[in-house]
Amino acid sequence: MIEPYDDTYFMKRALQEAEEAYEQGEIPIGAVIVANNQIIARAHNLTETLNDVTAHAEMQAITSAASFLGGKYLQKCTLYVTIEPCQMCAGALYWSQISNIVYGARDEQRGCIEMGTKLHPKTGMKGGVLAEECSQLLKKFFVEKRNLN
Amino acid sequence: MIEPYDDTYFMKRALQEAEEAYEQGEIPIGAVIVANNQIIARAHNLTETLNDVTAHAEMQAITSAASFLGGKYLQKCTLYVTIEPCQMCAGALYWSQISNIVYGARDEQRGCIEMGTKLHPKTGMKGGVLAEECSQLLKKFFVEKRNLN
Repeated sequence: MIEPYDDTYFMKRALQEAEEAYEQGEIPIGAVIVANNQIIARAHNLTETLNDVTAHAEMQAITSAASFLGGKYLQKCTLYVTIEPCQMCAGALYWSQISNIVYGARDEQRGCIEMGTKLHPKTGMKGGVLAEECSQLLKKFFVEKRNLN
Repeated sequence: MIEPYDDTYFMKRALQEAEEAYEQGEIPIGAVIVANNQIIARAHNLTETLNDVTAHAEMQAITSAASFLGGKYLQKCTLYVTIEPCQMCAGALYWSQISNIVYGARDEQRGCIEMGTKLHPKTGMKGGVLAEECSQLLKKFFVEKRNLN
């Protein structure tokens, strides 16, 4: 049987969010949070629009998912995010006790792995889902930004 | 000459925020952000009220200060917070490029020092300002909470 709701399916939804960010001139990173194969939150980076360094895709998705669930813990939820979370977002995910984090491309400079951020013991993390697409969108953004300046 | 606007002065303002949190049944942690000896943001923990693990005092103060300044970087600002920031908040402070972090009491379990969170190279941090008062308020909260349950 083909499972329509696999990691690739949900990462594509996160990528759609990243593309929306791209269209708005934001660093193109997108995220969705899934519970029982249902997307309960979707968000993209809004740091420029909101003038706020805390407005990463994951932060907004965490707030939105908690609002949907009516409780602040995201146990039994999975976050799909196009780029490996940073220290701040991994720290927020720690508090949320989310079950799973699935990211697309690594952030080898400022991602939580390189930075050594601790995840909650209940949280699993894996990466590499549509990594090339996720990474390419980010690269395209920065190349264009560099050419504009 | 007596300097009225010293670390103790601003930490007292952060403690007032923590006391407001306490009155609202929130974990009593408060923060203010100061630029040119002026408080430009004040906030306290609102995780219960907002049902949101990201609603730490520091996170809200960062957002609020950026809104006041009309720009997302907090260079030349100092954050005063009653308890050492966690990974999430230290991660957000990293992105904000804030000049200084002054905390009251250590959080030896889940504070950014124990967790090894990286601060921005432009950011200095010191602790121990009114540490006893900051710590006592937190202890009082948890003792009362334990006795209620």
